[in-house]
Amino acid sequence: MKFFLATGSDHKITELRRILVANGVDGVVLGLGDVDPYPEPVEDGDTFEANALIKAREGFARTGLPTLADDSGIEVDVLNRMPGVRSARWAGSGAGDGENLALLIRQIDDVAPEKRTARFVCAMALVWDGGEQVVRGVVEGTLAEAPRGQGGFGYDPLFIPEGETRTTAEMSPEEKDAISHRGRALRAMIPHLRLSTE
Amino acid sequence: MKFFLATGSDHKITELRRILVANGVDGVVLGLGDVDPYPEPVEDGDTFEANALIKAREGFARTGLPTLADDSGIEVDVLNRMPGVRSARWAGSGAGDGENLALLIRQIDDVAPEKRTARFVCAMALVWDGGEQVVRGVVEGTLAEAPRGQGGFGYDPLFIPEGETRTTAEMSPEEKDAISHRGRALRAMIPHLRLSTE
Repeated sequence: MKFFLATGSDHKITELRRILVANGVDGVVLGLGDVDPYPEPVEDGDTFEANALIKAREGFARTGLPTLADDSGIEVDVLNRMPGVRSARWAGSGAGDGENLALLIRQIDDVAPEKRTARFVCAMALVWDGGEQVVRGVVEGTLAEAPRGQGGFGYDPLFIPEGETRTTAEMSPEEKDAISHRGRALRAMIPHLRLSTE
Repeated sequence: MKFFLATGSDHKITELRRILVANGVDGVVLGLGDVDPYPEPVEDGDTFEANALIKAREGFARTGLPTLADDSGIEVDVLNRMPGVRSARWAGSGAGDGENLALLIRQIDDVAPEKRTARFVCAMALVWDGGEQVVRGVVEGTLAEAPRGQGGFGYDPLFIPEGETRTTAEMSPEEKDAISHRGRALRAMIPHLRLSTE
């Protein structure tokens, strides 16, 4: 099984490879660093699904390999489900994880605990010569008042999954993968991934 | 005609008084500085209307006078209609106009002109011994890429009303009042205001 992972995020590549291995999927997973350089496409879709497809289609067009891409983010209910597709650029198009997280903390600093509901969403798209497939993984939770934990990335230090007291940044990678939006989406995608690389 | 304007914003008091005078409403308009000091109520409503009512009810309970209050903000379509009710605290509960404006500019710095649609919304509530009335005023428009103009306040330097090329901060006060969300809401409220102070 050989396929291409169209993401420039080392964090995502690490997570996705880890989840694949844990689910018995072995094979050659190429990343952007393994292929001829190409400019990443503009992610101007209005939904996670649209953006995942933009990235997977571009990767397939460039490499001819079955290509997997994800688009994910956090939806905060008191912000009308934003940052959403703008999660990675919430504080501006040049902003990093730390800036985005700090901004979100400030923006909801007056919001009562019971209204701090949120969810992580991951749309994962697979494009190959046999077709296209898009799946979604979701994990519901609430937002802590201050960041906690050193694991994960992005908004993990703020996010407490339903039924948990820890943030996803306080969990082990395996614990996080078992319930995370990305873990759920990728596991739903595995049968299609096997099919695409047969 | 004597009534109470339950707002701590000098900008709003100035605008509302100006619109009333332009519409032939004269009388005694009291502001928060003219009555016994009281803590402003928590504006934790999910809608402009709910927040305007919270403020007007509190003002009426404190003064016994017919009380007018507004809650207003900007809805940006690519942000799922946020900042919305959080417009005045978009960068955090302690943020000022300049910080909120600068943040919004950064957050949409990658958004194409045709997707930069937005609207100003004002809900205005009147509470008196005869009842309660809530009206809404809206002005549709788009967001400029950089702030322009010295007039107005809040997000005015970024907002270009439909059919205009200038921002509302580049208009004269009278021009702005004629089309603004607050002007529209207040003019719709004037008959009720006359009724409440008869």
